[in-house]
Amino acid sequence: MLGAQGRAVHQCDRGWAPVFLDREQSISLMSVGFLLEKPDEAVVWRGPKKNALIKQFVSDVAWGELDFLVVDTPPGTSDEHMATVEALRPYQPLGALVVTTPQAVSVGDVRRELTFCRKTGLRVMGVVENMSGFTCPHCAECTSVFSRGGGEELARLAGVPFLGSVPLDPVLTRSLEEGHDFIQEFPGSPAFTALSSIAQKILDATPMCLP
Amino acid sequence: MLGAQGRAVHQCDRGWAPVFLDREQSISLMSVGFLLEKPDEAVVWRGPKKNALIKQFVSDVAWGELDFLVVDTPPGTSDEHMATVEALRPYQPLGALVVTTPQAVSVGDVRRELTFCRKTGLRVMGVVENMSGFTCPHCAECTSVFSRGGGEELARLAGVPFLGSVPLDPVLTRSLEEGHDFIQEFPGSPAFTALSSIAQKILDATPMCLP
Repeated sequence: MLGAQGRAVHQCDRGWAPVFLDREQSISLMSVGFLLEKPDEAVVWRGPKKNALIKQFVSDVAWGELDFLVVDTPPGTSDEHMATVEALRPYQPLGALVVTTPQAVSVGDVRRELTFCRKTGLRVMGVVENMSGFTCPHCAECTSVFSRGGGEELARLAGVPFLGSVPLDPVLTRSLEEGHDFIQEFPGSPAFTALSSIAQKILDATPMCLP
Repeated sequence: MLGAQGRAVHQCDRGWAPVFLDREQSISLMSVGFLLEKPDEAVVWRGPKKNALIKQFVSDVAWGELDFLVVDTPPGTSDEHMATVEALRPYQPLGALVVTTPQAVSVGDVRRELTFCRKTGLRVMGVVENMSGFTCPHCAECTSVFSRGGGEELARLAGVPFLGSVPLDPVLTRSLEEGHDFIQEFPGSPAFTALSSIAQKILDATPMCLP
């Protein structure tokens, strides 16, 4: 998605140097994908090995000064989530951004993730609803491909902020597929509008320590 | 999805009795969801505990005579997948049915799952592409919401059968949401047609031991 496939991680004197996405080094990245010899290799690792790597990604990568560290986890409440929460606890993370799709089956799973956050003492920054409706590019009619409103209802019941809905947007998925810079090229698209508004809400609610 | 939420699992003299979905007991079901006291409880279990439960679900449930045992796994190649493969190995499973969505990011993940199957000696019955295009109910034009053809291309490269594409179908998701019997009520819908054809291909390729 970030056009970083095949990039290599190097050892520097302060640890692993992350992969930088731009010349200004404004976005740096670390992934198990960079450590595999073959990109199609299955990471058939049991919990303890994964947990050790997650800890290393937090402590042994030369991240430098960061405004934000975003950890993209798999769905669920498993080893990876516990290892991440434990590794980040000393740094007092801002909290969890919880993403669901609108239908009941997904909302049920995500409700368990909210329970996980409460149990582990992780603040919930808010809920985002993804794949929320589809506007036909031919006739401009909007269809709820899945159901609608599950994310907002979940946030209401859990007493956490609802940050917004991101529609299914073929322009976004095509950009990621073909390596376009979605932010530069499609600032008017439905997904861009939704994502900017969500990002702004997060920034507004975040105590910043920027210079 | 199966309308079985809140149902309880009972102990019988041959082990745990699964939950039956119909009077004829033609579909039986076992899920960790039935064992939780509260349905919103997060299953915050580390690998070894999950592995032990997966083994119990295979060996300690009074399944009786089955035509098929379908195990629905989470995405990825993790503890759950290894535990499932190991628990089922003595029963010589027919193989893995691998589901992807069309876009490159998903196909990349699923390629690693095919590597996992090869490493663990699990036959791949075929690849299915899900969320494959959306036919607008207003104007009947079809849009590739994600990209298109990723599943078929993946199957071709891996040398395994491509079993078909299932479109995004609001009728299917609404049925699951509202508890309708999709198979009875919408036999003409695009998702039904696609799913029946895939099921038929699996049956045709499967050596059966039915009476």
